[in-house]
Amino acid sequence: MSEEARPRGGRPRDAGLTERILDEALRVIIAGGFAGMRIEQLATAVGCGKAAVYRRFSTPGELAAEAIARALPPAGVVDTGDVVTDLIAINQEITRGLAPDDERHASAGSLLSAMLAPEVRPHIWERYFAARRARAREIIARGKERGQISLDVDADDVIDALSGYSLYRSSMRGVELEDAHTRRIVQLLLGVSPDALPPM
Amino acid sequence: MSEEARPRGGRPRDAGLTERILDEALRVIIAGGFAGMRIEQLATAVGCGKAAVYRRFSTPGELAAEAIARALPPAGVVDTGDVVTDLIAINQEITRGLAPDDERHASAGSLLSAMLAPEVRPHIWERYFAARRARAREIIARGKERGQISLDVDADDVIDALSGYSLYRSSMRGVELEDAHTRRIVQLLLGVSPDALPPM
Repeated sequence: MSEEARPRGGRPRDAGLTERILDEALRVIIAGGFAGMRIEQLATAVGCGKAAVYRRFSTPGELAAEAIARALPPAGVVDTGDVVTDLIAINQEITRGLAPDDERHASAGSLLSAMLAPEVRPHIWERYFAARRARAREIIARGKERGQISLDVDADDVIDALSGYSLYRSSMRGVELEDAHTRRIVQLLLGVSPDALPPM
Repeated sequence: MSEEARPRGGRPRDAGLTERILDEALRVIIAGGFAGMRIEQLATAVGCGKAAVYRRFSTPGELAAEAIARALPPAGVVDTGDVVTDLIAINQEITRGLAPDDERHASAGSLLSAMLAPEVRPHIWERYFAARRARAREIIARGKERGQISLDVDADDVIDALSGYSLYRSSMRGVELEDAHTRRIVQLLLGVSPDALPPM
């Protein structure tokens, strides 16, 4: 579910060109990182002028964030009734496109690297992470309402630790996520009785 | 405590030039990311040839990893006798140079972004994270020997979750780490009774 850039003026905009700009931006970012993206080269590659790019995206960081967000899994709604299962599901959704078991392994590292570029980070946060974080907070709030977890659970800490665990393990350490381990981390963070880990 | 590149041949090498190459590489990475680093430009900037750079560093990724590792805090030894305190100390050591409360905030994002570039990640892992991870594992093993934590604690999961929490919170979310929250996360992950969080 990609969002097209919305016109800022009154003139209708060529949606096909917007798509081509975003596709080319993603290709360039995966090949050479955010720092390797040059608007002039990108415009030439898709056959438009620099102005056509800047009419759609105010800055290279905004363009990169939009291109990356489109490549990641769309947001779904999760409510199985169990807070642990729901948090794991939304975490998988957030990190799936960035995991090394994904066939696009090399690109996953490039995408996370590009997300953390100072020019990109605020935009990808707003465009991608913020809405998913809000839903994770809702899942934790429902768990409290249902009496499944303590009212003392700090939702932000749980979300930071779970997202951080998944991204660090998959992208920095380069190791696959394993469901039983992720589940146990969630249980520990939420203060509910953890399942035993399977024997190694 | 920086490590100088070791000569691969028998000829002694100009250590001052190695330092200048590493300094310039760091400057370029902070300014424009790993993808913005060009060996030819870098060699020109420090007044040597490309061959002098490649004699010291086999690949741009290796050079970048060495330059970044030099900019991060040196490794210390931590053993207060308390596993929670020790883990927090080593985690602070690992993440300090990458936190937004550091005066080099913009550069912190650039450094983490560069670390995650596929060409750099394996080298920075080996050069920087691996030794610190080994020490964190020792701290957890000592905690088990002393009977402070359960033998069931999965050291890798705890380290991934704690490192991930700190890096995600400081670099992706852009929020300062707070000692009381980090301590509570460590306690939850280790399965020891958590302190109450201070009122907000």
